[in-house]
Amino acid sequence: MEIIQGGVTAAQGFFAAHTAAGIKYKNRVDMAMLYSGEPCRAAGTFTTNVVKAAPVLWDRHIVEETGTAQAVVINAGIANACTGEEGLRYCRETAEAVSGHLGIPAEQVLVASTGVIGMQLPIDRIRAGAEAMLPVLSGSRSAGTAAAQAILTTDTQEKEVAVRFEAGGRTVTLGGMCKGSGMIHPNMCTMLAFLTTDLAISGDLLREALRTDIQDTFNMISVDGDTSTNDSVLLLANGLAGNTEITEKNDDYRQFCRALRYVNTELAKMIAGDGEGATALFEARVIHAHSKEDARILSKSVICSSLTKAMIFGHDANFGRVLCALGYSGADFDPDRVELSFESEAGSIAIFAEGKALDYSEEQATHILSEPVVTVIADMHMGDASATAWGCDLSYDYVKINADYRS
Amino acid sequence: MEIIQGGVTAAQGFFAAHTAAGIKYKNRVDMAMLYSGEPCRAAGTFTTNVVKAAPVLWDRHIVEETGTAQAVVINAGIANACTGEEGLRYCRETAEAVSGHLGIPAEQVLVASTGVIGMQLPIDRIRAGAEAMLPVLSGSRSAGTAAAQAILTTDTQEKEVAVRFEAGGRTVTLGGMCKGSGMIHPNMCTMLAFLTTDLAISGDLLREALRTDIQDTFNMISVDGDTSTNDSVLLLANGLAGNTEITEKNDDYRQFCRALRYVNTELAKMIAGDGEGATALFEARVIHAHSKEDARILSKSVICSSLTKAMIFGHDANFGRVLCALGYSGADFDPDRVELSFESEAGSIAIFAEGKALDYSEEQATHILSEPVVTVIADMHMGDASATAWGCDLSYDYVKINADYRS
Repeated sequence: MEIIQGGVTAAQGFFAAHTAAGIKYKNRVDMAMLYSGEPCRAAGTFTTNVVKAAPVLWDRHIVEETGTAQAVVINAGIANACTGEEGLRYCRETAEAVSGHLGIPAEQVLVASTGVIGMQLPIDRIRAGAEAMLPVLSGSRSAGTAAAQAILTTDTQEKEVAVRFEAGGRTVTLGGMCKGSGMIHPNMCTMLAFLTTDLAISGDLLREALRTDIQDTFNMISVDGDTSTNDSVLLLANGLAGNTEITEKNDDYRQFCRALRYVNTELAKMIAGDGEGATALFEARVIHAHSKEDARILSKSVICSSLTKAMIFGHDANFGRVLCALGYSGADFDPDRVELSFESEAGSIAIFAEGKALDYSEEQATHILSEPVVTVIADMHMGDASATAWGCDLSYDYVKINADYRS
Repeated sequence: MEIIQGGVTAAQGFFAAHTAAGIKYKNRVDMAMLYSGEPCRAAGTFTTNVVKAAPVLWDRHIVEETGTAQAVVINAGIANACTGEEGLRYCRETAEAVSGHLGIPAEQVLVASTGVIGMQLPIDRIRAGAEAMLPVLSGSRSAGTAAAQAILTTDTQEKEVAVRFEAGGRTVTLGGMCKGSGMIHPNMCTMLAFLTTDLAISGDLLREALRTDIQDTFNMISVDGDTSTNDSVLLLANGLAGNTEITEKNDDYRQFCRALRYVNTELAKMIAGDGEGATALFEARVIHAHSKEDARILSKSVICSSLTKAMIFGHDANFGRVLCALGYSGADFDPDRVELSFESEAGSIAIFAEGKALDYSEEQATHILSEPVVTVIADMHMGDASATAWGCDLSYDYVKINADYRS
């Protein structure tokens, strides 16, 4: 597997476009579009929130009923959630704004929205924006990057990754982009992520690969514990790499899963590290847990705690908060067997073992906690399972962003 | 039931004292003590965190084994949590510092600690502080208030409540004090609360009354989602009111339960409203839920969300965040049947019904959300159950307090 530059246009046959449609933000791009000249197998995972945004309902129907799609229209600024029948109608109208020109049914056009909940989309501007993107669709790398910029809300930077790998003697490319900064607490998936590949693979295996992968990638990040109404991960595969279609779990399938794991892990970490107001990516690695499920629960509990997050912001090795978060996670363990350490580019330091604090240097600990990526490692001494979760620190700016978000 | 002034010394035969022992804070009181001249029936509920502080282990043993106690020694500044064998030994040594002088076994002395996790208590100063309090034990109202001040950490004000009610023709008094401002997310109970009454009641009914009550009081508050290692609610009943001992669930028992509900609700709300950095008490009332359990889950989910909390801080009726928090709570419901409104001293306003936003005035909504107590009411239209949860807003000061806590 080779890591390459690019994102959603890296794979053969995928095109992207963007525009400033004036949906809610002024003077910035706020719509993007993806298109594949060839029909794609489509897989998707969506929010588990009982309150589901209209685009989630529209896309889920397409992915589950037909399992194919050829385009995606995305807007930032308004989430089209809690918008009733009118909101659902706007999904169809958005799809129809491009489907005729592209010569495909509206049911082959996925839609995605992110932004304020409860407001109706200005459908005239959405329609005009969608139509304006059609003539400028491009397969260039910069078109993919520009699309990744157009879908951002409170994010501070675009998020894209791409890799190449071999399958059936052919070179296959997988690329993706995502957005997400607040209301990030995946339970199944989170935020908006769009993955494109030229791999030829059966619909069943495409879905299974995605469903399995997100358990250890997008499901392991949290910014603020809030599972959004709009979370969606969409994966399109157009088969243009020309490999023999993957129809069983052979070596090619495993190559693809490895590539997917890499791309989704990197995208997920970008979301966590770019969490609203974040100054650091906060990683919790739990090792020797009793079971994989326990390891996931424990690591997520650590990165979700407001107190551990404030500890990272303050560069303060207040390890009791880590133990506290492990303790209320819901997973059982023996506190006297836990060993804690902190790690970053600046080094690593053991903090706690055998039920009490070790004799460590607070100065060195603060030095280690002052880096832009900080890892806490919890060795549970309970078994062989491990998991890693990613979050970010809790800063003044998180409060500022969210007290003012609509204004 | 009559609401009266006072706290832990309101009931007959209870004495309190306080001192500045210099445990961690400088120039402030940091130890308190409660004592009853008569032996008391004792009930307690403790943290469900797997990581339990040493005082929780000590007290739980006493409450469960003997069910009686006569004194409590409390310190602020250091939590005596994650302190291994040494921490447990210090519980006994703290109890022994007063038991000899009081002429009671060490096992009749409960202990409680709150503050930083992972540090050992300076046991010499604890012992000296405990001994210094013995000669100044007093049944005065001001002694109770001073004790309530001595147990605070990041709290901004002391928290005490007392009521009188009739049982068996006698006047019975119930009073309490508590502390708690951060690491507040009760799962069984939270923080430290001390309740004293001169009621005569069997140990079994005392325990049952407390266990039942906290489900709707201390278990329904949250400041930051973190269930502490030290959470304890202790209830002492010395029988001095002279009522016929309550041994069955008669009218007297129900009077007591009503009094307990009032005292614990008020204490719990004081903790939520005095949450770290809070500028407002944030109440979520869920009505017409499918079941009591659903109502509790839904209301707690609303007050626990970082995004709804920031919304209250920003006085912004961003109701989509409330729907989002209801939606990921884990309780099932039909989003199209939910009705949302906001309420405060400044009025009430309906916001959402039939799946979409109502045509309300943002200006009026902001006016309502600018009060020191703000209530969101969610009518689920699913059944007859209701519940109320209390939290607070998320402010810059929460971050400041917790990034700097140990310094």
